[in-house]
Amino acid sequence: LAHLNAVEACLATGTPLPCDLTFVIEGEEEVGSKSLGAFLKAHAAELRCDAIVISDNGIPSLKHPALTYALRGITAIEVEVQGPSRDLHSGIFGGCVDNPAMALAQMLAQLRDKHGRVTVPGFYDDVVKLTAFERKQLARLPHSDAALRKFLGVPALFGERGFTATEQRSARPTLEINGLTSGYQGEGSKTIVPAWARAKLTCRLVPNQKPEKVRKLVVDHLRRLCPPTVRLKIAGGHGGEPYLMSPTSAHAQAALRALRAAFDREPVLMREGGSIPIVTDFKKLLHA
Amino acid sequence: LAHLNAVEACLATGTPLPCDLTFVIEGEEEVGSKSLGAFLKAHAAELRCDAIVISDNGIPSLKHPALTYALRGITAIEVEVQGPSRDLHSGIFGGCVDNPAMALAQMLAQLRDKHGRVTVPGFYDDVVKLTAFERKQLARLPHSDAALRKFLGVPALFGERGFTATEQRSARPTLEINGLTSGYQGEGSKTIVPAWARAKLTCRLVPNQKPEKVRKLVVDHLRRLCPPTVRLKIAGGHGGEPYLMSPTSAHAQAALRALRAAFDREPVLMREGGSIPIVTDFKKLLHA
Repeated sequence: LAHLNAVEACLATGTPLPCDLTFVIEGEEEVGSKSLGAFLKAHAAELRCDAIVISDNGIPSLKHPALTYALRGITAIEVEVQGPSRDLHSGIFGGCVDNPAMALAQMLAQLRDKHGRVTVPGFYDDVVKLTAFERKQLARLPHSDAALRKFLGVPALFGERGFTATEQRSARPTLEINGLTSGYQGEGSKTIVPAWARAKLTCRLVPNQKPEKVRKLVVDHLRRLCPPTVRLKIAGGHGGEPYLMSPTSAHAQAALRALRAAFDREPVLMREGGSIPIVTDFKKLLHA
Repeated sequence: LAHLNAVEACLATGTPLPCDLTFVIEGEEEVGSKSLGAFLKAHAAELRCDAIVISDNGIPSLKHPALTYALRGITAIEVEVQGPSRDLHSGIFGGCVDNPAMALAQMLAQLRDKHGRVTVPGFYDDVVKLTAFERKQLARLPHSDAALRKFLGVPALFGERGFTATEQRSARPTLEINGLTSGYQGEGSKTIVPAWARAKLTCRLVPNQKPEKVRKLVVDHLRRLCPPTVRLKIAGGHGGEPYLMSPTSAHAQAALRALRAAFDREPVLMREGGSIPIVTDFKKLLHA
């Protein structure tokens, strides 16, 4: 926004811009940005630049212009626990055969503790600690636990102990169950031992966690947890790296100056909890 | 079968039967036998009898004519764990709010231990212990762990420690997850914290467990396990009492004599792992 305002001001006054601006419009971000990497590679020379500004972020409010200096990454894992070769009658066979839905629940239950901490060994090894400066900046964001709780409609907030809600949802990694599927799901009951049970998992990652490494840690842990009475099948999933730029770098300072000038307020620094995987392509291919 | 053979023999030779036989044909058993109770009540005098024989059981093989002297009962419970008021973006909100699918998995995981024993307090309190005579009789049933494992297609059998597979699946109570539903279940991934997660549970019961009592024990335990970060909703389910007649009673002896005469083999005694809820109606309304 700040940059567009500056562009408009130059256009209105006929002042030449002090630098070149190149616009890249991406329409495939929500479907995995399949074409952008090849495009950037093919036009790397033409797109050479000092810095890249992405407008796919929010700001807390017009009173809080914000520079987002970090993004969470992501890694996805699909877990299937396979038991009997078909759904079994729970009266005739129940009791002498493991229940894949129970085996899955018992495995999933051991991925996160009651204090919101992911219990996969090594999960936090590569996490770059939040600096005191960053924590102070993140605390400047407008936030109320009570208002957030009400907005989300939950009886209580819940997250990793020792971090604020703002930190938990933008600067700390997570492991979430996105979906569960097993057995009979319709009205009433069907008394079966289901043949299989499935869970969709994603981890939100923070710098410097690597999607493939975290994925392997989770999968290895699931394999250790899986009892010998069922079979474990792991399916692939997409991944995206987390991103972090120094909020005290020269480019960040320039962006903050621009925000200050455009909004006439002191901007805040924030991390984004979501992921924008194309950032990594920009960084790697354009070296900006 | 034995009785029908005897009837045919009497018919063929013109010999009057030594007793009256009344046939009751029930076509609603698999949909809950809604009409039979009222029918039995209305015709109780006409249907008065000494004993009832039900043909809805199998026998292990023609070489093993069997008298089924016990049935498991059942109680059903539907559990819903409710979190945020709608599915949330796991990037924007993941980390500061509990995941209902994880909360459910952690609750379910604590209902059964790794040795196949249900861990709901009081669950086994009313279970009538198998007698040495019964265990000896059940051991006479044709059975091979290896053949059963292969037939079910599982990597290994699994059940309550200290009992044979035959005992586990007919004479011991169970708690099974029949179905799981939460969040996104389609192809690929959808990075959400789901608003809710649901599990369908049934317990197979053995004499003298009461469906309503066991249901309450499980529900009370789930309420204790439920964290304050989610809401728990329990829905109703059908129930059916377990059944046991003494395998050494006069009526059982008469049935065994009939099986012996019809098959020309020593019959075996067995318990049925499934449930036939109408047995309780017959017992209560006809006092047979």
